[in-house]
Amino acid sequence: MRFLRHSHFPRAVLLAAALAFGAHALAQDDPLPSWNDGAAKKAIIDFVQATTTQGNANFAPPEERIATFDQDGTLWVEHPIYSQLVYCFDRVPAAVKAKPELANVEPFKTVMSGNLEAISKLPLKDLEKIAFATLTGMPVEQFQAEVKKWLAEAKDHRWKRPYTALTYLPMQEVLKYLRANGYRTYIVTGGGIDFVRVYAEQTYGIPPEQVVGTAAGVKYGYGKDGKPFLTKEPKLLLNDNDAGKPEGIHLMIGRRPYAAFGNSTGDRQMLEYTKAGNGMRLAMLVLHDDAKREYAYGPARGLPNTRVGTFTQALYDEAKKDGWIVISMKDDWKKIFAFEP
Amino acid sequence: MRFLRHSHFPRAVLLAAALAFGAHALAQDDPLPSWNDGAAKKAIIDFVQATTTQGNANFAPPEERIATFDQDGTLWVEHPIYSQLVYCFDRVPAAVKAKPELANVEPFKTVMSGNLEAISKLPLKDLEKIAFATLTGMPVEQFQAEVKKWLAEAKDHRWKRPYTALTYLPMQEVLKYLRANGYRTYIVTGGGIDFVRVYAEQTYGIPPEQVVGTAAGVKYGYGKDGKPFLTKEPKLLLNDNDAGKPEGIHLMIGRRPYAAFGNSTGDRQMLEYTKAGNGMRLAMLVLHDDAKREYAYGPARGLPNTRVGTFTQALYDEAKKDGWIVISMKDDWKKIFAFEP
Repeated sequence: MRFLRHSHFPRAVLLAAALAFGAHALAQDDPLPSWNDGAAKKAIIDFVQATTTQGNANFAPPEERIATFDQDGTLWVEHPIYSQLVYCFDRVPAAVKAKPELANVEPFKTVMSGNLEAISKLPLKDLEKIAFATLTGMPVEQFQAEVKKWLAEAKDHRWKRPYTALTYLPMQEVLKYLRANGYRTYIVTGGGIDFVRVYAEQTYGIPPEQVVGTAAGVKYGYGKDGKPFLTKEPKLLLNDNDAGKPEGIHLMIGRRPYAAFGNSTGDRQMLEYTKAGNGMRLAMLVLHDDAKREYAYGPARGLPNTRVGTFTQALYDEAKKDGWIVISMKDDWKKIFAFEP
Repeated sequence: MRFLRHSHFPRAVLLAAALAFGAHALAQDDPLPSWNDGAAKKAIIDFVQATTTQGNANFAPPEERIATFDQDGTLWVEHPIYSQLVYCFDRVPAAVKAKPELANVEPFKTVMSGNLEAISKLPLKDLEKIAFATLTGMPVEQFQAEVKKWLAEAKDHRWKRPYTALTYLPMQEVLKYLRANGYRTYIVTGGGIDFVRVYAEQTYGIPPEQVVGTAAGVKYGYGKDGKPFLTKEPKLLLNDNDAGKPEGIHLMIGRRPYAAFGNSTGDRQMLEYTKAGNGMRLAMLVLHDDAKREYAYGPARGLPNTRVGTFTQALYDEAKKDGWIVISMKDDWKKIFAFEP
């Protein structure tokens, strides 16, 4: 600036330059640039400032700073079908090849028929059978390699992009903003813990040990070479949905979160549990109300219920009553995906 | 040093001062001052140097640096009885008061009788009944408060000190040394996960989310005030012993450890699993062979088997064969407890 002080630039130029620098600094200071100004953005920033400012009545000790995020519909697209379910369907031919007797057994017969309407009507019990047949029975390392390969090749039908590209930019900003302020960010998903762990670090910066999810047991054994290995077992250990979310959080983290983010009735108990802690806690729900840029679904929007996360009127009422913040994708998010122009 | 250069101190004084400074620096540089020089100490230092030196063939990426520690007999005294079992016995009167019908039911009748010989002969099945009656059925917060209170008052019979004072100083040094080199240290214990989490942070610098242990389920519910809370349930979710250790590590951490420390057959699979990873891995077993300063027990010492961790000849043979390092408390540890003179 010493140079400028002695220069002959007209004052107006200097002023314009100063303004430009100022605006630039401001943009850099905004931790949530993909969010429109509003109650949701303000709630996040107020929460972080209050809980991380020494001397503030709501200051949270660094070791207690835990934030939990549902994944499907909260961090990435879940509509019209969970990507892990697509994975399971894609793996059915291989499962049938490994166990040919499955070809004549339901629901595998229907899946192999390729009849999309019949497939879409399979009851939950059948989906569980498909999940166990395609997600268990193999060594952990083999499963991880299969998921990795699939993720590199599979593409969402609407955007023609890998599923891991369909994460919400505004939520990625929240993850980074919280971490920059000493929060450890966890995924707490109804999805499979081993499935999500394969890509969570690269996709969200969340390491395997910070992923809580629905878990099947593993069984320790020895290979022909005498080397030990773990096999994924068709035995449900933790159903990380609904009440299973706070139960899973207690098991895997052992602390109550200060902030929790969800988008459906399956996240209700996690948000209740978070909000019931002392001091300031943040509970937020993503509302899918942007039919143009993403999807609008759920009874809260007067739309038919779907297989994926449901945002009921009762959930909306509880949010209003308990001070949870509803995020409108349409109004609160300036940009939804990083690949948008 | 500028002052010294121009001083008139005789050379000998300067030399002595330099040597003194040098020796001081050397002592500070030793990350394991309570260890005697020997194969065990060397193995730890070689492992840390190899896995944390960029360019070394065995360099471990920082995010992969996980070290797991059994607790009872590895980090603190387990003989003649696990401290958590003492806690359970101490809680029996309160459990009987809460449920008077237990007074006439075994094994509670025997425990209430105070007949130590009969109590010491209770079979494992009865100990499980006592554990469920005293460790479950209450809200998580109440359990934590009860354990905290007990820990502040209870004393070991031999040293007349709180149980948390009976941690092994050399192992505390290993924990700190590993953490100073980017390792995240985990407890992986057959003990109760909720019990150990109460004191692990203060006692070992290990936060709740880095404690893996035998776990009972918790159940989400609502109090009369409508507030949600978790109740400890008499339902075993994870038996974190033997094969349960690598299984629990996979569930809770999702990565294979680079280093693992144990002291009994219950740690065998954890050490095998650790050692089976690629590159340099460290597997160590604490051998209780110091009858004077601590205890000597286990068949490997020609002593009768006890209730606590057993170090069998087969375990010793496997250690030798697979390159695990056996730590002799007698020979490898200069000092066992911090309170020793």
